[in-house]
Amino acid sequence: MSVTAARMFEFRLEATQGLARAGTLTLPHGTVATPAFMPVGTHGVVRGLSPTDVARTGAQIILGNTYHLHLRPGEGVIRAMGGLHRFTTWRKPMLTDSGGFQVFSLEGLRRIDEDGVEFQSHVDGTYRKLTPERAMEIQWTLGADIAMAFDHVVPGQAPYELACEGMERTLRWLDRCQARHGALAAGSAGEQAIGEAWEQSPAGSSDGPIVRQTLWPIVQGGTHDDLRRRSLEGTLARGPWTGIAIGGLSVGEPKPVMHRILETLAPELPRETPRYLMGVGFPSDLLEGIARGVDLFDCVAATRNGRHGTAWLPTGRINVRGAALKGSTEPLDPECDCETCTSYPRGYLRHLFVVEDMLGLRLVSLHNIRFLVRLGEQARTHILAGTFDGWSREWLRRYHARGA
Amino acid sequence: MSVTAARMFEFRLEATQGLARAGTLTLPHGTVATPAFMPVGTHGVVRGLSPTDVARTGAQIILGNTYHLHLRPGEGVIRAMGGLHRFTTWRKPMLTDSGGFQVFSLEGLRRIDEDGVEFQSHVDGTYRKLTPERAMEIQWTLGADIAMAFDHVVPGQAPYELACEGMERTLRWLDRCQARHGALAAGSAGEQAIGEAWEQSPAGSSDGPIVRQTLWPIVQGGTHDDLRRRSLEGTLARGPWTGIAIGGLSVGEPKPVMHRILETLAPELPRETPRYLMGVGFPSDLLEGIARGVDLFDCVAATRNGRHGTAWLPTGRINVRGAALKGSTEPLDPECDCETCTSYPRGYLRHLFVVEDMLGLRLVSLHNIRFLVRLGEQARTHILAGTFDGWSREWLRRYHARGA
Repeated sequence: MSVTAARMFEFRLEATQGLARAGTLTLPHGTVATPAFMPVGTHGVVRGLSPTDVARTGAQIILGNTYHLHLRPGEGVIRAMGGLHRFTTWRKPMLTDSGGFQVFSLEGLRRIDEDGVEFQSHVDGTYRKLTPERAMEIQWTLGADIAMAFDHVVPGQAPYELACEGMERTLRWLDRCQARHGALAAGSAGEQAIGEAWEQSPAGSSDGPIVRQTLWPIVQGGTHDDLRRRSLEGTLARGPWTGIAIGGLSVGEPKPVMHRILETLAPELPRETPRYLMGVGFPSDLLEGIARGVDLFDCVAATRNGRHGTAWLPTGRINVRGAALKGSTEPLDPECDCETCTSYPRGYLRHLFVVEDMLGLRLVSLHNIRFLVRLGEQARTHILAGTFDGWSREWLRRYHARGA
Repeated sequence: MSVTAARMFEFRLEATQGLARAGTLTLPHGTVATPAFMPVGTHGVVRGLSPTDVARTGAQIILGNTYHLHLRPGEGVIRAMGGLHRFTTWRKPMLTDSGGFQVFSLEGLRRIDEDGVEFQSHVDGTYRKLTPERAMEIQWTLGADIAMAFDHVVPGQAPYELACEGMERTLRWLDRCQARHGALAAGSAGEQAIGEAWEQSPAGSSDGPIVRQTLWPIVQGGTHDDLRRRSLEGTLARGPWTGIAIGGLSVGEPKPVMHRILETLAPELPRETPRYLMGVGFPSDLLEGIARGVDLFDCVAATRNGRHGTAWLPTGRINVRGAALKGSTEPLDPECDCETCTSYPRGYLRHLFVVEDMLGLRLVSLHNIRFLVRLGEQARTHILAGTFDGWSREWLRRYHARGA
């Protein structure tokens, strides 16, 4: 990695409390104060929300799905329009997943071998193939700040043999991802990089090649502690990395199992490297993850719940369609500072769901995203102040109290 | 009408050019510079748009549908929440229709007699009745700035006998509307009015009862000039009015017929009273109406077209799904100043429709509303400058050129 690349993708650890960490991740399109929740922009859009809406939630980085963007509109179209940032008009940092999770989820429509995954598009039925190299090429063309390695994902409760096979293949594929991504980065030296920052980064004017995208590996190994440890060892042996992801969790295994694996990995993970827990989570998962050393999260639950009228509150979740909200002039969450909670009465939000106006889906999605973003902000404040443990315990007690 | 009411609902005619007029309508919740397009907020929401979105289009007044709001959430719920303005958080002027148009459209689900219209709710199948008195009570309870009279609407191409019957009944019902609305207004003297302005109007602190809502009559008579004239005469005989609506047009009759009726009515309409052409229209209808003396318009076409991906441009309409937009980095309408046109490339808008994300519907609806609102603003500027005729002719020529 060049000097410039290292400076472009810096992570500065600012405070810790127990395993919990507060830091700042610098990327070509801006910085991310951690811990942080990253909304999911499946098709280059966070479902139903404008980039301006998303920015107003305080989100610092969003995720784009390589599988979906490859199918529609295709990475070539996005490249021709100036890359993913210009295409979506989202000016802050972005991360793309590798498409691995999506193609492995296409049960019955995919064929896996050592080379990669052949799959049938859910859009037009055409046969396509993703390999570690293709996943790197597509992501490079899309031009997000962070590209994810192409991993072999196994089902949540996979037995040892299967989890081991997936974990070992993920390491072999990581070699291929690293080689291809390195070649793409080297080949781009001196040329106008795709995904160029909207506002020229200071690093861009200095010595060395300008590397606009970094690659993060993914630790696999299912629910088996020793496989997870071996996966991490193998990953670190191929480093250094500017960030490390933990994949294959929150896919059906019991919560205590996820927590145990995070605790197993935490002491082995490099202190100065940001840790990204993929596909997590719900509000309590965020706090449990932060308490176990996670810096970055993504999940579709905020928008999916929002579309179904489920809003998160500090006292647990609420169904916005519920008769109890009829005629209520109270805000959805009196403690929240989002557009929805500061502008609209509960009775109006309920009415929007009753008459099936899409404004309702948008307003509850907005609140849920702000809820998770703010939870990251609050956790960060408490970690910096050294009060995270007590605050987090009290927060979780209140959140779960109604169900108890 | 009390002195206070007259001042609360003042219309000041500022300039004319031929039949075209520019004026300012003062209402309890603000002023409306005319000519003006009024977006339709069917269920107390302009489909898919937040009140903030709508305000940013420059819209000065929106319409709420009494029929829909009566069914859901019910005017009692809205009253308990502080009236339609507080319910929707739209702080500017509002107008409610009477529900007449909707219940007369419920073919097969309604029974009409001199008393009113019995109809079956499209939501839950319950039988309900709207009469002139009920329409006034519901609208008073909703609390918009302007209430519309309950009229007998006949089909667009209704024969003379039927159109005459509807027109005469509309006049008889106007007497009943006027009596009931007057009683409601008188009864409210001294009490906190529903729909109270968010910011206390200066008129509220002066002598006389505070009247927060005015009633506008509707001229009917189908496509028959003499019936239209008789309707207007009968209406004026029951005045004075703070505004007069022309209903039953743009319901299937040829455009020249609508233009002829507007021309027939224009010289008979009081100069100092605003004229509202109901349910109109498309961009060219706005200019044709303004040229014939209309001050205010409403129509769902802007949002309905927006949801179907049809955008209005100065050169005619365009299908946002069209393959020609794929990969385009151009704005939708380079001459437009709306959020959609100043923020997003065409290729991204097309992508949103292809992946069926509701953000696309919203962004094109926003543009279409801004397009009509801006057309009103431009017409006004040209009327004030005395250049309306030439500008309007050239605008229409360019708009229709492609189809010619």
